[in-house]
Amino acid sequence: MAPDRTLSQRLLDGDRRALARGISLVESDHPDGWALVSEVFPHTGRAAVVGFTGPPGVGKSTLLGTLTRAERARGRTVGVLSVDPSSPFTQGALLGDRIRLTEHFLDPGVFIRSMANRGALGGLSEAALQAALLMDAAGRDVVFVETVGVGQAEVDVIDHADTIVLVLMPGSGDSIQALKAGVMEIPDIIVVNKADHPLTDTMVREIRGVLSLGPAGAAGGTSSWRVPIVKTQAAHGLGTDELVEQLERHREHIAAEGTLVERRRRNLMNEVVAIATARMRRTLEASIREDAEVQTLLAEVAERRIDPATAATRILARGAERVADESGPAPG
Amino acid sequence: MAPDRTLSQRLLDGDRRALARGISLVESDHPDGWALVSEVFPHTGRAAVVGFTGPPGVGKSTLLGTLTRAERARGRTVGVLSVDPSSPFTQGALLGDRIRLTEHFLDPGVFIRSMANRGALGGLSEAALQAALLMDAAGRDVVFVETVGVGQAEVDVIDHADTIVLVLMPGSGDSIQALKAGVMEIPDIIVVNKADHPLTDTMVREIRGVLSLGPAGAAGGTSSWRVPIVKTQAAHGLGTDELVEQLERHREHIAAEGTLVERRRRNLMNEVVAIATARMRRTLEASIREDAEVQTLLAEVAERRIDPATAATRILARGAERVADESGPAPG
Repeated sequence: MAPDRTLSQRLLDGDRRALARGISLVESDHPDGWALVSEVFPHTGRAAVVGFTGPPGVGKSTLLGTLTRAERARGRTVGVLSVDPSSPFTQGALLGDRIRLTEHFLDPGVFIRSMANRGALGGLSEAALQAALLMDAAGRDVVFVETVGVGQAEVDVIDHADTIVLVLMPGSGDSIQALKAGVMEIPDIIVVNKADHPLTDTMVREIRGVLSLGPAGAAGGTSSWRVPIVKTQAAHGLGTDELVEQLERHREHIAAEGTLVERRRRNLMNEVVAIATARMRRTLEASIREDAEVQTLLAEVAERRIDPATAATRILARGAERVADESGPAPG
Repeated sequence: MAPDRTLSQRLLDGDRRALARGISLVESDHPDGWALVSEVFPHTGRAAVVGFTGPPGVGKSTLLGTLTRAERARGRTVGVLSVDPSSPFTQGALLGDRIRLTEHFLDPGVFIRSMANRGALGGLSEAALQAALLMDAAGRDVVFVETVGVGQAEVDVIDHADTIVLVLMPGSGDSIQALKAGVMEIPDIIVVNKADHPLTDTMVREIRGVLSLGPAGAAGGTSSWRVPIVKTQAAHGLGTDELVEQLERHREHIAAEGTLVERRRRNLMNEVVAIATARMRRTLEASIREDAEVQTLLAEVAERRIDPATAATRILARGAERVADESGPAPG
């Protein structure tokens, strides 16, 4: 336990290398990573965690770059966690995105980390949420979590956020339709980036139209917050100050209203469920790969002799049996 | 068991009321529904199952209406399963969508059913896949499964399909970006609906650009299939015949190539995992709601005394304990 305690102490002191090491441990699912989060967790809850979502290509990374600069100018330390659920042939694009953040690489007040999705989104969001907790524990004033989102799939990645920002651009017609149809949840703040585009005001009007459809205070359910629309040109640093102000305003609003505490409680519950589900799924997938009896069952499904639900029932029963074996005789 | 056997026999004979009843049983998670699927499963695998995905508002329902007409004109029976993951305030829009299918309501060769998402997407896709199996067993030649998709979330709903069609329209910029970034998987066929829009050819060019980026035969991995782009004006019935031809062409291609068998095997495996995961998650959520000890644990998480991962571990251990209790003494 000695080296772990040292690591957690260094992390709580704000040591960047300890933070980097901690996140790597969490990312690789190392037991020391989980132990570290467990140790430092009582020291979390101080950072303002802001989640950024929106379709790829709208300029989220550029926006985060300018936003980081604005927060630094206000004397705040920043952690940026970029979650990339993407296929191999897009690595070029993502590398390009990261380069936009390089101006901050030498600033000790900025900590940037990106995590890539390798198949299991559940596993990735799990690790990302732990990484955000570590940044919080390391004393970052603000933690930005960025994820590519065009639907509901990535919602749990930003579930840990106090404030959720949806970034769109002129031409984001599908997202507008998804908001309108209720497939995408209404965020706390909407940014229209690339606002030098001639169709910007059309886009803003469309968003206003969608927001007016929803129940008052759609964001957070019972909240009385009115979702602001902020126009930015991140590539030219325009609109960033207004966005920083709206972020502060939202945070003060939910703190004053009491919804911050409630939201965090709900987010932590969701996190427990997400972690437990991801682990169960992993156990299940392992049993499918490794268990000869399960393999036989699956072959029978493929031959249409046993239906999928019956096979699932038998696999779950078998899993319970194994768990029972491992935990020894049950109380009679 | 007697009434069930009768129901399954009637369903296998193609009785529409039996099919409707069976889907209702599956939708309400009734044990008789699962028993029914189990009984008829050996008779499935004959229907051509086609999944339609794409952002809301592109006209999928209208397209399915004209496509159904075209398939009927070719003498084929059709089942349409419309999956709506949406919030309460969009029901008006969805009702409007359904009205577009009403011309088929009196045709015994067409069976239309929509299933709504009430919170748990896992649970819904599970039920939808079972419903598709029932339509298959009831002798529908073609089964269309429609879902709103703007990301990865809905992929498992159409996982059961032999052919996946992505429906876009001019202005679907976010979807193009999502395809480009690899966040959305390349489908088998891409439809650009509302092709009377002046920006149609721009959209087609953008899609061509994205497709040219991917590895040859992106759809299905090892398949040599080249993804066709079909322009339609569903509201005027234009382009439907070409789409029907492309659907037939794709089916013949994967049958000849051997990927149909492989794809179905993989889809069935995914279905087993999806059903098992959904059930595990349901058990977990029930324990969170009902178990006093779990409630205490969660309160400690909210107070930041126990971290989420540790809480998840304890909840899972407790679940295993309960399973062991229920299954009696484990072998010593």
